[in-house]
Amino acid sequence: MIVAVDQVLETVDATIEETLERLFTLLAIPSISTDPAFDADCTRAADWLVADLQALGFDAQRHDTPGKPMVVGKTSTGTGPSFLFYGHYDMQPVDPLDLWEHDPFKADISERGGQKVIRGRGSSDDKGQLMTFIEACRAWKAVHGTLPGNLTIFLEGEEESGSPSLIPFLRAQKELLSADLALVCDTGMYDLETPSICTSLRGMLGEEITITGPNRDLHSGAYGGPATNPIRVLTKILAALHDDQGRVTVPGFYDGVPETPQVLKDAWAGLGFETANFLGPVGLSTPAGEVDRSVLEMIWTRPTCEFNGITGGYTGDGFKTVLPAEARAKVSFRLVGTQDPHAIRKNFRAMVEGMLPPDAKVSFADHGASPASVMPTDAPAFEQARTALTEEWGKEAVFVGGGGSIPVVGRFKEELGIDSMLVGFAQDDDAIHSPNEKYNLMSFHKGIRSWVRILEKLNG
Amino acid sequence: MIVAVDQVLETVDATIEETLERLFTLLAIPSISTDPAFDADCTRAADWLVADLQALGFDAQRHDTPGKPMVVGKTSTGTGPSFLFYGHYDMQPVDPLDLWEHDPFKADISERGGQKVIRGRGSSDDKGQLMTFIEACRAWKAVHGTLPGNLTIFLEGEEESGSPSLIPFLRAQKELLSADLALVCDTGMYDLETPSICTSLRGMLGEEITITGPNRDLHSGAYGGPATNPIRVLTKILAALHDDQGRVTVPGFYDGVPETPQVLKDAWAGLGFETANFLGPVGLSTPAGEVDRSVLEMIWTRPTCEFNGITGGYTGDGFKTVLPAEARAKVSFRLVGTQDPHAIRKNFRAMVEGMLPPDAKVSFADHGASPASVMPTDAPAFEQARTALTEEWGKEAVFVGGGGSIPVVGRFKEELGIDSMLVGFAQDDDAIHSPNEKYNLMSFHKGIRSWVRILEKLNG
Repeated sequence: MIVAVDQVLETVDATIEETLERLFTLLAIPSISTDPAFDADCTRAADWLVADLQALGFDAQRHDTPGKPMVVGKTSTGTGPSFLFYGHYDMQPVDPLDLWEHDPFKADISERGGQKVIRGRGSSDDKGQLMTFIEACRAWKAVHGTLPGNLTIFLEGEEESGSPSLIPFLRAQKELLSADLALVCDTGMYDLETPSICTSLRGMLGEEITITGPNRDLHSGAYGGPATNPIRVLTKILAALHDDQGRVTVPGFYDGVPETPQVLKDAWAGLGFETANFLGPVGLSTPAGEVDRSVLEMIWTRPTCEFNGITGGYTGDGFKTVLPAEARAKVSFRLVGTQDPHAIRKNFRAMVEGMLPPDAKVSFADHGASPASVMPTDAPAFEQARTALTEEWGKEAVFVGGGGSIPVVGRFKEELGIDSMLVGFAQDDDAIHSPNEKYNLMSFHKGIRSWVRILEKLNG
Repeated sequence: MIVAVDQVLETVDATIEETLERLFTLLAIPSISTDPAFDADCTRAADWLVADLQALGFDAQRHDTPGKPMVVGKTSTGTGPSFLFYGHYDMQPVDPLDLWEHDPFKADISERGGQKVIRGRGSSDDKGQLMTFIEACRAWKAVHGTLPGNLTIFLEGEEESGSPSLIPFLRAQKELLSADLALVCDTGMYDLETPSICTSLRGMLGEEITITGPNRDLHSGAYGGPATNPIRVLTKILAALHDDQGRVTVPGFYDGVPETPQVLKDAWAGLGFETANFLGPVGLSTPAGEVDRSVLEMIWTRPTCEFNGITGGYTGDGFKTVLPAEARAKVSFRLVGTQDPHAIRKNFRAMVEGMLPPDAKVSFADHGASPASVMPTDAPAFEQARTALTEEWGKEAVFVGGGGSIPVVGRFKEELGIDSMLVGFAQDDDAIHSPNEKYNLMSFHKGIRSWVRILEKLNG
């Protein structure tokens, strides 16, 4: 097999120009899912991918939905462990167009920050990333004559617009999509040189609390003192949600929060992470989270409570001596391990209600609840992929956490019972969702090579 | 003198119809100072008043300013203590016009809530009130042949638009306006039957604090935990401004706050004040201020700290997982006694700065500072007026506090060195600043009679 892998990698290198042409063709289709004006383009992108997968030998089909089509392609001959590859072919809108330094739909190779980069909307998120996998399959096929193993490729067209069709489709196509493990290519590397596998994603609980007091806005001269002030009630409540150690005070909040494994801590110690490099660019210097946790723990393996918005009373220019009738705040909790968002919601609401003074009332709005995703890093695939990435990049690949959430990972787990392995090659400066999105040529080229090596180990 | 007073009062009663006609004429002039479209009407109202004062025998003149004219009329023959009467001839706008049940500039007598009322913009605030004094002078003159004592009448035309010309005018006309005591008719009665003299007005300190953290809005997935959240910093600070007894925690805040005199507490105990009647109509039931203070103390003689507005992060519909770059709050302090607003501002700012975590910065905006006005109730005029009001209304007149501020009172003190005695006959339901403003006919009629009795005692 070693010989074969080397041959596949050589094929990747030898064909990189035509590989790039194919990516440019896909990037030229403005499949912007949030804007109905681009509906036909989304379908066109799906059709292009179906045709490409079919040409490669996949049993591939476009699956229409009430929204954008899904693309599914399967190998027909696979045995052994089965894998479900996921990517998305839809892209973010491009406005403001005048901030782009080139036509966002005319991809090209340019140079930026000492790196050769592929410029264009979708180059990093996610067409460039998904094509690393398809191109790995193409090179594999060219050498082996067959596609690698027992594989399903699943490409979504609504990731940038909330995936309204995803859950119904997963439920309807359970069998078609069944696999032992999902491979998701929609994340980044730790840095320019360090490949990484994201092994946990924080969940989220969103709550909005509205405190009401008097039945109308009052004048603070006439009522200031005896009248309950909803802003005062709200700030008292919010201020009580963290203790002086930075811990969240909601009862039972830390139930299900695992201690960060020593093996992860050890691996992270080798990353050379510098707080100044992380916080400095956003104008900060001192970690504000739990006092006894490292910054990497704070964003990767520790839960949080954050205030995302607050409003009440007069907020315009100048001053009004109003005692407002209500005040509102949006509060979110990032969750880890097996924290139960529904139990936390219940306890949070009870805590808030328990803090209300006599004349204050509260109402709550539910802004979503999803548990954390924790990947089974002891499954063989994770160590195989880590070895493959280390070999390709010449630097130890690392298991990292993800501070945010990638909803499809939770959906695969809930609807299909499938864990995910997240391998991606994006960089923090790719400007996804912004003007001048790019994808490093090295990310694309070595990304393809990485998948070749991963597929070889997974099917070894 | 008793005979003379009775004659003057009889004259008031006998001439009330023509007195009302004069008020209606004044109310027909739309002297709205906030709208330049009514500039000429403001001048017309001033001229009408000058002419009326002159006809009465005052040495009266219109004094033009960069804004609306001032009207000043003086008696030429007075001896003994000197008094400066203040009222304002400008009025609030009338929109929304469709909520009025009649033409706001065609005053009439109607019936509302079992009371005969004078309907019309300015009927209560403040043309009706100022005419109670002028009509008292007129009846006095009719009986005595001379005007009462050593008197200056000073009528402003910018009270509803921030009085921009007031301070320059006071400074320029110090001598013209000099007096031993100001008589201000722009306040109300305690209730329908109980005359009152307002003997204190709370001062105010307005502050806006802006907390900044990161140099731009951040994503709470990527930065939630280690990044300083300005809303969290702000709510911690605001929550610390009151202790659990409802007291304000700014260092030195209670310096200069006098204990409420027992004589006032005793008088107030006789008012039959019911918390339920005060808080119930605005949807509240339980006083929220200092736990050991009565509601009347809370609004009349105790200082407060209120939050009038707060904003930060995402406040629209739905949810955004943003960690905002800044959060802002408007904070006001109502002040009493000899509390020094400048010292409190300094201490407040130092307290806020002392609570900032490492990565948070604060900036402050100054929204005004005025000390409380505390009237010298031991001066003979106060007891004389109280006796006069008690005689007229047949119910013990009471010294009350004012929760808000009447800026002219502070200006008279600061610029002219003159204390004020606030006597007025408005009712809480007069709808000043709102559609369908009214002034009870009883307020007008007995208000004139009250001033006759007060003038008699002051000059006795």
